[in-house]
Amino acid sequence: MKQKYLAALLVAGLATSAAFAQVKPEQQIEYRKSAMTVFARSTGALNAMAKGDVPFNKDVAQRHAAVLANLSDLPLSGGAFGPGTDKGAPHKSDAKVWSEPEKFKAAFDKFATAARALPAAAAEQGTLKTALADLGKTCKGCHDDYRSK
Amino acid sequence: MKQKYLAALLVAGLATSAAFAQVKPEQQIEYRKSAMTVFARSTGALNAMAKGDVPFNKDVAQRHAAVLANLSDLPLSGGAFGPGTDKGAPHKSDAKVWSEPEKFKAAFDKFATAARALPAAAAEQGTLKTALADLGKTCKGCHDDYRSK
Repeated sequence: MKQKYLAALLVAGLATSAAFAQVKPEQQIEYRKSAMTVFARSTGALNAMAKGDVPFNKDVAQRHAAVLANLSDLPLSGGAFGPGTDKGAPHKSDAKVWSEPEKFKAAFDKFATAARALPAAAAEQGTLKTALADLGKTCKGCHDDYRSK
Repeated sequence: MKQKYLAALLVAGLATSAAFAQVKPEQQIEYRKSAMTVFARSTGALNAMAKGDVPFNKDVAQRHAAVLANLSDLPLSGGAFGPGTDKGAPHKSDAKVWSEPEKFKAAFDKFATAARALPAAAAEQGTLKTALADLGKTCKGCHDDYRSK
């Protein structure tokens, strides 16, 4: 059973040697939660500028966009949802992350793809707003299925 | 007293309107801890490649470098050490962060400057190693004075 589980994770690209060898489950959980907190802050800052709640600042927008674009896939590719990380510390990841890893990867990849479109879009308020709407759908899509209520 | 404290923070650039208006102390604490966790993971991944513990992968190195370069100053400039955030949740920031904000900002700025040098350096293992040594000194410099033991 464990072999089959690992094989499924490997197919989905969730299992890397670095993730297995070096990072304890509680550290992986802390990293994925931290990355989500950073994503939330950066999307919040960008949304505030896109909506005009705070003045659009291209330099700040570019930095938040670059954080999202570059960090987006690292929790998945760098060891944050590895085997055994459904336990070890409090978290909100649903058990389906590990029971259907390929579907989870597909949902996460949509987020990473949308995040990588942000740096170009963040040059202007209008294009940023459109890109953030696209990003928001991918956040919701993954959270609906893979974040516990 | 509070006026003087806020004035010192404003001089040091630690106080922004967004930080005051929108982000609760516990959220600021969570964000700065999350950013530090992300910094640690990315510097760890880069160090492993620089030392040859894992094969040098330029694409992965560039992404971690970009995360560090773009995220580095956001905890300071974007509201993570604001007034009142010495309390509200468990954390390791020393009281000196708020009692000597200008010196703290100077120490943090050294880190952000070193982090911004990483993307160019991450093109090759040798230059990456040198840049990480410089970065490490700025981490230690700030932690020695501003992180509780």
